[in-house]
Amino acid sequence: MEENTTIFGIRTVIEAIESEKNIDKIYIQKGLSGPLMQELQKLVGKQEYNISYVPVEKLNKLAQGNHQGVVAKVSPVKFQNLEELVAKRIEEVGTPPLFLLLDQVTDARNFGAIIRTGECCGVDAIIIQGKGGAPVNADTVKTSAGAVFNIPLVKVNHIKDAIYYLQASGIKVVAATEKTTSHLYELDFSLPVALVMGSEEKGVSSSILKIVDETAKLPMFGSIASLNVSVACGAFLYEIVRQRM
Amino acid sequence: MEENTTIFGIRTVIEAIESEKNIDKIYIQKGLSGPLMQELQKLVGKQEYNISYVPVEKLNKLAQGNHQGVVAKVSPVKFQNLEELVAKRIEEVGTPPLFLLLDQVTDARNFGAIIRTGECCGVDAIIIQGKGGAPVNADTVKTSAGAVFNIPLVKVNHIKDAIYYLQASGIKVVAATEKTTSHLYELDFSLPVALVMGSEEKGVSSSILKIVDETAKLPMFGSIASLNVSVACGAFLYEIVRQRM
Repeated sequence: MEENTTIFGIRTVIEAIESEKNIDKIYIQKGLSGPLMQELQKLVGKQEYNISYVPVEKLNKLAQGNHQGVVAKVSPVKFQNLEELVAKRIEEVGTPPLFLLLDQVTDARNFGAIIRTGECCGVDAIIIQGKGGAPVNADTVKTSAGAVFNIPLVKVNHIKDAIYYLQASGIKVVAATEKTTSHLYELDFSLPVALVMGSEEKGVSSSILKIVDETAKLPMFGSIASLNVSVACGAFLYEIVRQRM
Repeated sequence: MEENTTIFGIRTVIEAIESEKNIDKIYIQKGLSGPLMQELQKLVGKQEYNISYVPVEKLNKLAQGNHQGVVAKVSPVKFQNLEELVAKRIEEVGTPPLFLLLDQVTDARNFGAIIRTGECCGVDAIIIQGKGGAPVNADTVKTSAGAVFNIPLVKVNHIKDAIYYLQASGIKVVAATEKTTSHLYELDFSLPVALVMGSEEKGVSSSILKIVDETAKLPMFGSIASLNVSVACGAFLYEIVRQRM
């Protein structure tokens, strides 16, 4: 099983960024300065990285070596490019495209179970946001039962931009939310679809609900009225699968 | 949040058994004897309890007190009686009964997510086996989002006996298994149904597959071909919900 790799040293982290390694998180010592540090700051400014500014003690724990105030976690997974992937996919004949977007699912086990479900349902790619969501770490790899290596993952700066891009490519974007009157079973999934699942705590954020094409909920009969996000995701994806069979 | 309570002392555990407390597990010191111990052994012989014979060091860790070689974990949940529950339910008009049986789901988080899903889908009761499955502990309560207190739970000595009883009561028993040619969507769930979900590792055991009325699988498109059990359970239950809407 591949796990997150810890790399350290300013130069090493700069090289990892330049060679487009999949950096999950960067830890930088509070108040660190100097020319190399400036070079790093410039680089990380170009893209949205998940950065924490931490005391040196935290870095000493993270890396057993001369970390020079910078440690990064590199993900075992190679992320793909949204535009290339969508462009290629919509040209294919056969089953209509099916994309899955995660708006801040934060629990690694839920994330892993969703990746596993996506792979089983023939999802074309799972799109996550660079900042705020669960990392692709050892827990994710394990709960995904290895599916993380078999399904394209795409990391974008903002889920919203991905939604606009998918819509512009003729893909209907549907958000799973309880804040709607439509039941899942009333929707038509025979055309190209992208499904948005929200975070464990807040669901799909209201700014995203405003821009999606349709919203749908699962019927609820109990008094809890809230499912685990990976279970809800499975119920949605399997309804899409059923309609397309 | 209620959690498992640890009780200890031979007399205390005997009293808990006699007052029909929901005992999740009993730890007994290896080689323990004496008249009180004989009384306990006689009591636990009448029903299938989850018993571990352990060294005294283990007991010292489990209970800070004079445990006399016996410690038990008491579940916060009150289990119900299968026969009473089924008899009452099949007399009701309206939606046909829907029961869920778990054949050795061992992970507390999966168990909790299944309880939560069952409650949301209007399942009448979840039936588990006394021995071998996940305990109803703090993790289960937490992942169930409290649903564990809102849905009847039934603990039986053997899942097989519960299946025979359900069948005799006119309830069709369907097992979720990949070892079948029928897809879930080909089955008719409009009549009374009990769904059997299997363990994370082995699925529904072959001796149970032999006695159920029908088997069904979810379509699989990836190369992993295996879902998390709580996700699979959700996809099954929501198909039953869909057909009945």
